[in-house]
Amino acid sequence: MDPALLLLVLDLVGIFVFALAGGLVAVRRDLDVFGVLVLAGTTGLGGGFLRDVLIDATPPAALVDWRYLAAPVVAGLVTFVAHPALGRMERSIGVFDAFGLALFCVAGALKAADFGLGPVPAALMGMVTAIGGGMARDLLVGQVPGVLAGGLYAVPALAGAAVAVGGFSAGVPTLVAAIAGFAVCLVWRLLALYRHWNAPRPRGPASV
Amino acid sequence: MDPALLLLVLDLVGIFVFALAGGLVAVRRDLDVFGVLVLAGTTGLGGGFLRDVLIDATPPAALVDWRYLAAPVVAGLVTFVAHPALGRMERSIGVFDAFGLALFCVAGALKAADFGLGPVPAALMGMVTAIGGGMARDLLVGQVPGVLAGGLYAVPALAGAAVAVGGFSAGVPTLVAAIAGFAVCLVWRLLALYRHWNAPRPRGPASV
Amino acid sequence: MDPALLLLVLDLVGIFVFALAGGLVAVRRDLDVFGVLVLAGTTGLGGGFLRDVLIDATPPAALVDWRYLAAPVVAGLVTFVAHPALGRMERSIGVFDAFGLALFCVAGALKAADFGLGPVPAALMGMVTAIGGGMARDLLVGQVPGVLAGGLYAVPALAGAAVAVGGFSAGVPTLVAAIAGFAVCLVWRLLALYRHWNAPRPRGPASV
Repeated sequence: MDPALLLLVLDLVGIFVFALAGGLVAVRRDLDVFGVLVLAGTTGLGGGFLRDVLIDATPPAALVDWRYLAAPVVAGLVTFVAHPALGRMERSIGVFDAFGLALFCVAGALKAADFGLGPVPAALMGMVTAIGGGMARDLLVGQVPGVLAGGLYAVPALAGAAVAVGGFSAGVPTLVAAIAGFAVCLVWRLLALYRHWNAPRPRGPASV
Repeated sequence: MDPALLLLVLDLVGIFVFALAGGLVAVRRDLDVFGVLVLAGTTGLGGGFLRDVLIDATPPAALVDWRYLAAPVVAGLVTFVAHPALGRMERSIGVFDAFGLALFCVAGALKAADFGLGPVPAALMGMVTAIGGGMARDLLVGQVPGVLAGGLYAVPALAGAAVAVGGFSAGVPTLVAAIAGFAVCLVWRLLALYRHWNAPRPRGPASV
Repeated sequence: MDPALLLLVLDLVGIFVFALAGGLVAVRRDLDVFGVLVLAGTTGLGGGFLRDVLIDATPPAALVDWRYLAAPVVAGLVTFVAHPALGRMERSIGVFDAFGLALFCVAGALKAADFGLGPVPAALMGMVTAIGGGMARDLLVGQVPGVLAGGLYAVPALAGAAVAVGGFSAGVPTLVAAIAGFAVCLVWRLLALYRHWNAPRPRGPASV
């Protein structure tokens, strides 16, 4: 498969899934239809925008290719209309979100590597792509980003990105490296989700 | 009128008006003079910075042309000194703000089109220019951005930007397209303000 | 001393010190190890990222040079393990932070001048570099940035940046200009810290 096409498909599916989750947050905050679209767009596109600005891939793909804009708009409208049904699928949403996370960390890392970043910063950019949209969404609704205190979320994304970009740097075919990174992130995230794994917290009293 | 000069004047007036509104928010939050200046600057320049970073028009005009920096500084100092008088003009502030919104959505969209973006993303960038500064200001003082849940604010900006960039793309003289977009946004926003129009909200219970 | 090497050393020490302060905030918010690293990284690198994106020095140094990434990671891990000891050094932390502020405002202003900005915007970028990371950190944990309402913090940074970039523009040797700017910011900030100096607040009732 052509790497560029692979990146496009990964990106669009990930954006749609993340935008659904973002739209649901907006509905629960009683935002209006514009707020639903903005939170869907921010969650779906925010991580990629942040990555593209940092690696100087501007204007971001979403401002050049209409499909990148259409994906979160459609997802937002779907959420606006069908949120009761979506809300009942909360558990499934967590799974979809894990798919988005795995897709984004791989797509983000490979794009950063493609723009000349070394393996370590490229892996970091993959993680940023995967968690940036959700962090921006949480900030917009006045919450401390869940990824900073909640279950294991960013670490699987970093691991998946590292596997993908490490394989790519080592000469493994792009598709194989992408699938391996995707699988590592997805499996780890799903295990964390169902087994309630958490990252370690500081020990001892937080001296104030 | 020369398009570049038109853009400059639109920009400066819009920045000043927005900066006044931002400074007032800072005064009401009991921030110090630096906080007043930062909120004035963020409200006045934030949307343009965001647009310029996304369309790769960096460094933003405000870092190259001193007039862009002077406008919010003067507005901030005016607010700092004259806030009681300004506060009594609250209703007028809403009208000024509508002017700023209409100016920014047109100026932002035309600049994005000038940098090669297609009509749809250029219109979106016009809206971002118009609402971005106010969103950043709200985030800085710990509020969910009003534009996500309040009255009709972003939609008139998007409409005005679309009219301006649509006319521009269709070959209408820049000044005519700009005035048409400006009028659409201004009238719609003022009607929304005085008739308390709101964007639709999701129906049904927000399943939690 | 070679100006490039001087900038590198200033940057790394400032990043490390700021990252320690950011990590401490995360520990006190009961964030997990990932949250500690993110807040350390944001505080240490956020101001520089913002400056680099605005002056188009992308990708930022931290994504190209591994030492820029290593500094906040090490600082974050040190905080995670040794936070009780660090917390007892609160007063010293304020002093370290003043050092970081003085280092960053000078390094940020000189880099902006090096990228062709005029003296006034370069000084502003120096201030942004110095206070941007702390502002981003405060936003991430849901606080109004302390710099907007607290003691004299941004003004010394702006003054130090202005002295450094003013000297540089006037042909003073880089090292001399840097030391003068550093000293101005450091002394002013330490005096403000120990004498509880504050920036003036608006007078009169905040009409609501």
